[in-house]
Amino acid sequence: MSKQTTKQAINPQVGIIMGSDSDLETVVHAAQTLDNFGVPSDLVVASAHRSPALVTKTLRSWEKAGVQVVIAAAGCAAHLPGVVASQTYLPVIGVPLAAPPFNGMDSVLSILPMPGGIPVATMAVGKPGVINAALFAVRILALHNPILGTKLASHIKDMERSVVEKNKKLKSLGAKAFLAQRGK
Amino acid sequence: MSKQTTKQAINPQVGIIMGSDSDLETVVHAAQTLDNFGVPSDLVVASAHRSPALVTKTLRSWEKAGVQVVIAAAGCAAHLPGVVASQTYLPVIGVPLAAPPFNGMDSVLSILPMPGGIPVATMAVGKPGVINAALFAVRILALHNPILGTKLASHIKDMERSVVEKNKKLKSLGAKAFLAQRGK
Amino acid sequence: MSKQTTKQAINPQVGIIMGSDSDLETVVHAAQTLDNFGVPSDLVVASAHRSPALVTKTLRSWEKAGVQVVIAAAGCAAHLPGVVASQTYLPVIGVPLAAPPFNGMDSVLSILPMPGGIPVATMAVGKPGVINAALFAVRILALHNPILGTKLASHIKDMERSVVEKNKKLKSLGAKAFLAQRGK
Amino acid sequence: MSKQTTKQAINPQVGIIMGSDSDLETVVHAAQTLDNFGVPSDLVVASAHRSPALVTKTLRSWEKAGVQVVIAAAGCAAHLPGVVASQTYLPVIGVPLAAPPFNGMDSVLSILPMPGGIPVATMAVGKPGVINAALFAVRILALHNPILGTKLASHIKDMERSVVEKNKKLKSLGAKAFLAQRGK
Amino acid sequence: MSKQTTKQAINPQVGIIMGSDSDLETVVHAAQTLDNFGVPSDLVVASAHRSPALVTKTLRSWEKAGVQVVIAAAGCAAHLPGVVASQTYLPVIGVPLAAPPFNGMDSVLSILPMPGGIPVATMAVGKPGVINAALFAVRILALHNPILGTKLASHIKDMERSVVEKNKKLKSLGAKAFLAQRGK
Amino acid sequence: MSKQTTKQAINPQVGIIMGSDSDLETVVHAAQTLDNFGVPSDLVVASAHRSPALVTKTLRSWEKAGVQVVIAAAGCAAHLPGVVASQTYLPVIGVPLAAPPFNGMDSVLSILPMPGGIPVATMAVGKPGVINAALFAVRILALHNPILGTKLASHIKDMERSVVEKNKKLKSLGAKAFLAQRGK
Amino acid sequence: MSKQTTKQAINPQVGIIMGSDSDLETVVHAAQTLDNFGVPSDLVVASAHRSPALVTKTLRSWEKAGVQVVIAAAGCAAHLPGVVASQTYLPVIGVPLAAPPFNGMDSVLSILPMPGGIPVATMAVGKPGVINAALFAVRILALHNPILGTKLASHIKDMERSVVEKNKKLKSLGAKAFLAQRGK
Amino acid sequence: MSKQTTKQAINPQVGIIMGSDSDLETVVHAAQTLDNFGVPSDLVVASAHRSPALVTKTLRSWEKAGVQVVIAAAGCAAHLPGVVASQTYLPVIGVPLAAPPFNGMDSVLSILPMPGGIPVATMAVGKPGVINAALFAVRILALHNPILGTKLASHIKDMERSVVEKNKKLKSLGAKAFLAQRGK
Repeated sequence: MSKQTTKQAINPQVGIIMGSDSDLETVVHAAQTLDNFGVPSDLVVASAHRSPALVTKTLRSWEKAGVQVVIAAAGCAAHLPGVVASQTYLPVIGVPLAAPPFNGMDSVLSILPMPGGIPVATMAVGKPGVINAALFAVRILALHNPILGTKLASHIKDMERSVVEKNKKLKSLGAKAFLAQRGK
Repeated sequence: MSKQTTKQAINPQVGIIMGSDSDLETVVHAAQTLDNFGVPSDLVVASAHRSPALVTKTLRSWEKAGVQVVIAAAGCAAHLPGVVASQTYLPVIGVPLAAPPFNGMDSVLSILPMPGGIPVATMAVGKPGVINAALFAVRILALHNPILGTKLASHIKDMERSVVEKNKKLKSLGAKAFLAQRGK
Repeated sequence: MSKQTTKQAINPQVGIIMGSDSDLETVVHAAQTLDNFGVPSDLVVASAHRSPALVTKTLRSWEKAGVQVVIAAAGCAAHLPGVVASQTYLPVIGVPLAAPPFNGMDSVLSILPMPGGIPVATMAVGKPGVINAALFAVRILALHNPILGTKLASHIKDMERSVVEKNKKLKSLGAKAFLAQRGK
Repeated sequence: MSKQTTKQAINPQVGIIMGSDSDLETVVHAAQTLDNFGVPSDLVVASAHRSPALVTKTLRSWEKAGVQVVIAAAGCAAHLPGVVASQTYLPVIGVPLAAPPFNGMDSVLSILPMPGGIPVATMAVGKPGVINAALFAVRILALHNPILGTKLASHIKDMERSVVEKNKKLKSLGAKAFLAQRGK
Repeated sequence: MSKQTTKQAINPQVGIIMGSDSDLETVVHAAQTLDNFGVPSDLVVASAHRSPALVTKTLRSWEKAGVQVVIAAAGCAAHLPGVVASQTYLPVIGVPLAAPPFNGMDSVLSILPMPGGIPVATMAVGKPGVINAALFAVRILALHNPILGTKLASHIKDMERSVVEKNKKLKSLGAKAFLAQRGK
Repeated sequence: MSKQTTKQAINPQVGIIMGSDSDLETVVHAAQTLDNFGVPSDLVVASAHRSPALVTKTLRSWEKAGVQVVIAAAGCAAHLPGVVASQTYLPVIGVPLAAPPFNGMDSVLSILPMPGGIPVATMAVGKPGVINAALFAVRILALHNPILGTKLASHIKDMERSVVEKNKKLKSLGAKAFLAQRGK
Repeated sequence: MSKQTTKQAINPQVGIIMGSDSDLETVVHAAQTLDNFGVPSDLVVASAHRSPALVTKTLRSWEKAGVQVVIAAAGCAAHLPGVVASQTYLPVIGVPLAAPPFNGMDSVLSILPMPGGIPVATMAVGKPGVINAALFAVRILALHNPILGTKLASHIKDMERSVVEKNKKLKSLGAKAFLAQRGK
Repeated sequence: MSKQTTKQAINPQVGIIMGSDSDLETVVHAAQTLDNFGVPSDLVVASAHRSPALVTKTLRSWEKAGVQVVIAAAGCAAHLPGVVASQTYLPVIGVPLAAPPFNGMDSVLSILPMPGGIPVATMAVGKPGVINAALFAVRILALHNPILGTKLASHIKDMERSVVEKNKKLKSLGAKAFLAQRGK
């Protein structure tokens, strides 16, 4: 994690809001992923139920600061993404987080079935969803930022290369040695 | 339905809020049930996402008017009950409503798993939940209203009597005739 | 936990009943939450199936003692809340508890879909539900107890303040240091 | 349906209890199936929540009358089978009934996960479960009734014969004609 | 566990069959529960898929030996109880066992929805279901065995007494001390 | 449907077995799909529970007749595919069928989670699964039948062509006219 | 529906792809919603499985034509959105469509849990999801199109106004008359 | 694991493809099972989303090399089996893999409900599914390989013998000693 994610960005392009500081350990991967692309972001803890005023205040300050995409992550009866989307015109990406006993299905069903009118773009539950929320924000920002587009292209090619190399390694080592090596 | 539910009550004791006027056909049974007990109520359409200001305004006016219990009904990603509970100190009863494709399970999982701190009392999905929300409000109001307590006791005894009578009728007619008579 | 919850209250305002003493570790948080508000409560172990007479006896004694709200917690095929609600006119709050293999969904579906007539107010599964059951009871009691109303308002403001402060701390420390500090 | 099921049996061997008279249309198939085997039964409407005293009274009268097996059918938050099993030493067969919006899964999860100590034998949801509850009662009664055992054996052989004959018919007619004939 | 369950009974009244010896650790509780009531049982490992002949052979030998009730336990795609019920006229109790990834729901849905004609009495998943299967068998056997009936009545009264005593202990110790004592 | 599927094939290459003649209307599409490829098949009604002997007899006769692939379709507690797979060395394709109240999920969870050792290849629920079972059988048979391989290739190209043409039509007509034309 | 959606746009800003022409009736609402905002779009039928080449060709032509957002809708094992997202750098919005027997849950679970790396923004199932996909695309496009931003603001205010007016009408008519008028 | 599975086979009869090298630990059991039957296989890591070109290239090389059956394993939004089946005429067996939070149900619902036209034969989730995929491939290959057919028959008889022996051991030792011995 670079300094950029530990000290908050002055001109964030992506605002990241989460319902509880206990979500930070997962949600920080969004900031980190954005940071890898050089996209400044701002991390905020604000609950739709316990601190609704802070949610509104955060959105207003983000809109002034030029934030272009909002990522909202929450668990259980996850109202934060929908509440955020109802208070801003920016595109809002919702990330369901898993918690017992329903393990994220409650969160998915609190975010995904938004009625027609107020859209929330839902991602996978937990860390993969957090990372993809950041990558989706990058795809949006890259529409008007060719340098970011080039980084995105590299990132996608790197993922492909990584798979191809792992397959080569599997071919040359065989499954047994491949697994043994990974076990170390 | 008496006049009382068609014209809104001046001093409602129970506020009933729903996310969309398409919910009214189901939700009106709460007002009707309360009306049967002589409890005045107020029916409001206000969406947590599309008209958040109206939600807040309604709650403030209800608190002034002496409303004691709030019933909030919503379907799909049902944020209304939680949002309402975060904006008032009154007891809030949430009623999940069914809609395709998840048939109310989405709504249950958007209301029931509220994190510790902001309680919402969840009822069954749809009409039985709407009726029970009203009966639960009556139980709360009856704590300080002996006349209402007497009505509540009668209502519960009536339900028992109705079952006992149906059973007697089944005994005297036999199943075949009982079903035939009901079919008419 | 204060003495009040270890020695049972003489004039409890809230009765708390659970199906098994193995539920006590979770359910005790209801008594503790009520205790924080100065609300005396009574904890009882009584099973709807194994000791139905004790359930009935408990309800009668609570009604005499002036209990105003009943919290009933149970897991698996959780019949206790419904059985309790069928034997008293008091408002009954049901708390589903999680157990393998269905992890609380069985309990939710045994409590929530009560047919119209006998209402049970269902809370979240497990500890958050237990705490919210207590807070919901406080909201009911506060309707006729202004001192409790003031405490409730403070509690809600405290929750907001806590979120705001955590967000400030996140801002000043950055995510990395915030997580590191929490990890200690 | 023979007279025996329309007029209730004087010395029933199987007691059939359901939570609501709206269940009768489905539950009557248990009486009818038993009737096919010459087993007298008694049909009772009694709700675990709305008429608990009638449930208890029914069980006491059945025990006196020599009932050997109890079938209890209920939908939604289906507490009746468990409540019945907690009040009698007889074997109790529970039949979940389907109702919107959870279509019987709520009923299954209210009956099946009974904690160790009070057993309820759960059958399939709805009509197949009602029929199988009766057939299961017949299997129990046949343990000490050789004539019933012979009837049970015939019934099982009849089922096999019926499948074998349908297959023969399919072979001789071909699928097209078989379906056409059934469509008439 | 008494000797009776370690050496198999000569004249078993209950036959217990499981799909795999890896189920024995859970299923043995059926034998043990029966043993507590003095009911001799026979434990058999036989798979519906891998050793269908052994299933058939076991059933024939049990019928000869006078077995009156069969308990069949299986996990995953749990066909054993249904296959057993199709090969005997005895009452068959099915116990679903939990295994990853569906944690017993697959097993429940492989046993419970038997089509009308071949009944299987389904119990809860895992150990509570295994114990209740034994207790249900005891209820059946007690119909014609007054000594067993007396033991069953004692067992049920013991369960009630145990709850009543735990509640008394909770009253006298308070929750804190009760939990502390249990923790030891 | 050609004559070939109405009169059963003399040398079937695929055996199609279903648990009930009420499944025929859906399952006949497997025979019809195979018929389109010129693959002779045999349709049999035989229940794993009600006519187990007929299941075994059918498999033996199919093995003698040179059947190479078995398709087994069943609903509810769908044991037929697993039972069939345990009695033959041929590849067995299982098709879950939908029925109330679990709408095929019971059937999927009765077929798919077969324990390691006896494989059943599970297809989609209902008609698409029935058609794909036939197409999967064609893929197997085509491994050693080049003419069938050519037909399979044509079929796949035809599907592609059909999509391409529908897209062209949508382009030339526009959505409005396209939908209007389909509505006729 | 204006002419713009019936004749395809020359310079579409949003590409809309669906797996089958049977989806068009639902998916056309995306084009229509975009059309209401004056955003040109292109509707394409192309299956990830049956016409993968057409999917690729469509994406290349869209990228050349300046498409900025892709909406991909599919039902059942819905691979189209993920396959599309793996072949373009544009932001891809996935819309699950409902079909029996799993009613869209299969489609949600085929789109939402994309592994970290290739993001798909998932919307609600069916028509509300299709409309919200279009509105989400508008939010993205509005980031660099102030006129569209103004339209979006109006649209959101119109939704609020519509709720406020429905509530006023309910207040003035009462529930009975409101429902009666809607019924006409 | 023999050398054959560690060094890849020159003339594989079964191609095994998985979406990520993290799946290898589970998927290797397919190669190992095939190896036990002397069937050469080839293990490949290639992602439908991150390296689609490698998927296509692998299929082309397998078809040239004479591969007869493809096993494709993937987790989460598991598109690999369907994508593979759309690019080859060979029979494709899909194995869903479990991952949090949906534990394989997402993967099952991404593979099983393939629309009619492109069949994928779905196996159980995880290791049992991987093993059964291999055994199903053996059943296909054995259709034209009598030596393999003999091995398959032995394998099935060995499974039966193993169950029979375990049952004998249980009989001779009793449950207590059997469990104690296994515990060692």
